[in-house]
Amino acid sequence: MRRTSPKRHDVPVTTDRMETFSDGVIAILITIMVLELNVPDGEHLSSLHKVWPVFGSYVLSFVIIGIYWNNHHHMLRATERINGAVLWANLHLLFWLSLFPFGTAWMGERHIARTPTAVYGVILLAAAIAYYILQTLILRELGPDSVLALAIGRDTKGKLSPVIYTAGILLTFVSRWVGLAAYVIVALMWLVPDRRLEPSLATVGNPRPH
Amino acid sequence: MRRTSPKRHDVPVTTDRMETFSDGVIAILITIMVLELNVPDGEHLSSLHKVWPVFGSYVLSFVIIGIYWNNHHHMLRATERINGAVLWANLHLLFWLSLFPFGTAWMGERHIARTPTAVYGVILLAAAIAYYILQTLILRELGPDSVLALAIGRDTKGKLSPVIYTAGILLTFVSRWVGLAAYVIVALMWLVPDRRLEPSLATVGNPRPH
Amino acid sequence: MRRTSPKRHDVPVTTDRMETFSDGVIAILITIMVLELNVPDGEHLSSLHKVWPVFGSYVLSFVIIGIYWNNHHHMLRATERINGAVLWANLHLLFWLSLFPFGTAWMGERHIARTPTAVYGVILLAAAIAYYILQTLILRELGPDSVLALAIGRDTKGKLSPVIYTAGILLTFVSRWVGLAAYVIVALMWLVPDRRLEPSLATVGNPRPH
Amino acid sequence: MRRTSPKRHDVPVTTDRMETFSDGVIAILITIMVLELNVPDGEHLSSLHKVWPVFGSYVLSFVIIGIYWNNHHHMLRATERINGAVLWANLHLLFWLSLFPFGTAWMGERHIARTPTAVYGVILLAAAIAYYILQTLILRELGPDSVLALAIGRDTKGKLSPVIYTAGILLTFVSRWVGLAAYVIVALMWLVPDRRLEPSLATVGNPRPH
Repeated sequence: MRRTSPKRHDVPVTTDRMETFSDGVIAILITIMVLELNVPDGEHLSSLHKVWPVFGSYVLSFVIIGIYWNNHHHMLRATERINGAVLWANLHLLFWLSLFPFGTAWMGERHIARTPTAVYGVILLAAAIAYYILQTLILRELGPDSVLALAIGRDTKGKLSPVIYTAGILLTFVSRWVGLAAYVIVALMWLVPDRRLEPSLATVGNPRPH
Repeated sequence: MRRTSPKRHDVPVTTDRMETFSDGVIAILITIMVLELNVPDGEHLSSLHKVWPVFGSYVLSFVIIGIYWNNHHHMLRATERINGAVLWANLHLLFWLSLFPFGTAWMGERHIARTPTAVYGVILLAAAIAYYILQTLILRELGPDSVLALAIGRDTKGKLSPVIYTAGILLTFVSRWVGLAAYVIVALMWLVPDRRLEPSLATVGNPRPH
Repeated sequence: MRRTSPKRHDVPVTTDRMETFSDGVIAILITIMVLELNVPDGEHLSSLHKVWPVFGSYVLSFVIIGIYWNNHHHMLRATERINGAVLWANLHLLFWLSLFPFGTAWMGERHIARTPTAVYGVILLAAAIAYYILQTLILRELGPDSVLALAIGRDTKGKLSPVIYTAGILLTFVSRWVGLAAYVIVALMWLVPDRRLEPSLATVGNPRPH
Repeated sequence: MRRTSPKRHDVPVTTDRMETFSDGVIAILITIMVLELNVPDGEHLSSLHKVWPVFGSYVLSFVIIGIYWNNHHHMLRATERINGAVLWANLHLLFWLSLFPFGTAWMGERHIARTPTAVYGVILLAAAIAYYILQTLILRELGPDSVLALAIGRDTKGKLSPVIYTAGILLTFVSRWVGLAAYVIVALMWLVPDRRLEPSLATVGNPRPH
């Protein structure tokens, strides 16, 4: 059922339009990053050498934004009505996501140098926190017995992500590769469906076909 | 209720499609601005120094565009049918909004220098006037007893904004920071929900659930 | 009534999705053009001097794309089903529209020099022809008694536009300003609602209030 | 019938939203490519000389993306529900499509030099394989008796495309023009409707008018 609630002035924005707007911003972000892949100066395979770190950073950011898009969709589908706080929490998340192209390009062009890699981690961390704030505000609106609250459960992944990101940022000062590995681990953690970690999602979701 | 009015040739554009188009342009604008955040030349934290003013300008423009998006949505949700004048008033607003990335980047890159800061204010002022024109045309179509007219009320914020912007533009010639502060004040004025200023919104909106 | 026709494999694309896709491309085009407005090097008003021709070109292109968006919407709203030929005719139109940022920037940066102004006219002409082809294919599908066919009528504006554009292109070799004036005249012709030229639109559209 | 299935947590994403998101990315890609058409330095027709190869590459990529958009739409319209694997297969396809602007610009700016032309072919090949994977996953979900499975049939074009692309990549080392010709042939193969190759599409589609 599409959430096309009737016109009321007390509900600032329909989830429908917030979803569409967020999707638009995310689609643009994911595509704009590729503009940072500067066309090589030469015409030989060797000229691609300089492009590799940017390409690798792009792949990582692409996957992370893909995960955000997927999770964001899940969450909003279960949300009937939103208030002004949710609206601004969503824009806050989009703000940090919009810094991905900048962080990705700096880290890539500087060949995974220490500071750019740490700054990239700070952007990842800020986006994770922004997502957590958004989720908390939506859950407060829906209540603890809502389908979304049950599906999210203890939210192990959501709580673990900022911790690993913080560790990764600090670890870049030991080795930038270890720091980068921490970011990759968070991405993999979300990609791999782990039924043990989130049993409530399977329990709640499956027995309610249609 | 979705405004999917039947096919009539006397109604130029459905609010639906005008909303979608406006959302698209606004989503692109808000994302494109980040492209102005040039990747630093160096790889140390000090190389971020030059980025700060651009970053600050970007945050301000992001918030202002977010406010426009929110208000624009409110207004169009209450609008059943639009005519050619409304269509072009909307494009006129989008035109000035589309100059935000230019103004933001110039002000940021020139480290809040006098002229760029004044020019940025002129763009803000023009957008505020364009919004006021659009709102006036929509209200004329809907009539003084419409829900929107009651919700907007005396439109204190809408009338105050151009005044403060004009003051800000003039004040940049005294101190560019005072000018910039004026722009920030307008943004904060819209962000903070002030129930005393707009009681009609609460009165009209709440008692009409669904 | 929304054209959400049921799933059939003989109808390649719903007008709905073609409309959304076209809107997306047009929204991006209109916003991307502003990226050509390079941030001035200096920080004084005099540094805006170089920007003026680009700004003027941008305004003209913005208005022309706005007209296309409006007309395109009109036409598709009256179209129930489309075939493969219409789909590709639409992509053909979008192709020429997508060259607007290039043409606009070249003409602007070269300060309305002869060749860039003529090339800009060629892009305008090609887009006008592409629109005419698209319209012809849609009308062939709908038949001569359709509401759209009656509304379009003799299509004086549609037939006049390519003629004036061609004259404008040739006139750039006499005076580039006369050539540019021809392009502006076409834009004004579409902006000003002329009831004498298109009486069928008023006759057909108005007496059919939903 | 629009696929607006009710809120269920076991279905990760509606086809509706996946379609909209994909459309957004494709619309942005097709428009962003034109940004690679750098504005010529001079103001004479001769300055366009350098632009021609980029322009030609742009036309080819525009047509190929147009074909993808069309086929993608066909496929998703016949898909009722999607799972996580389909979602990621779709993002995988979008990833390779998002490399088109890079490949197009490099090949164009280097005037169809050997390596860039081969790399462009690799991107085309990867996108074709990604599309095949996506289609296979959707067909597995729908079953062999689904309308889509019947419409796709033996999928001669889908199987032939990667083969011709591979041949084209290898042939660039004989002659870059022959390699490029192979890419063009694949595009033409999809553009020309060949009823002998895909009879099932005509048979299945037509006799089922809603």
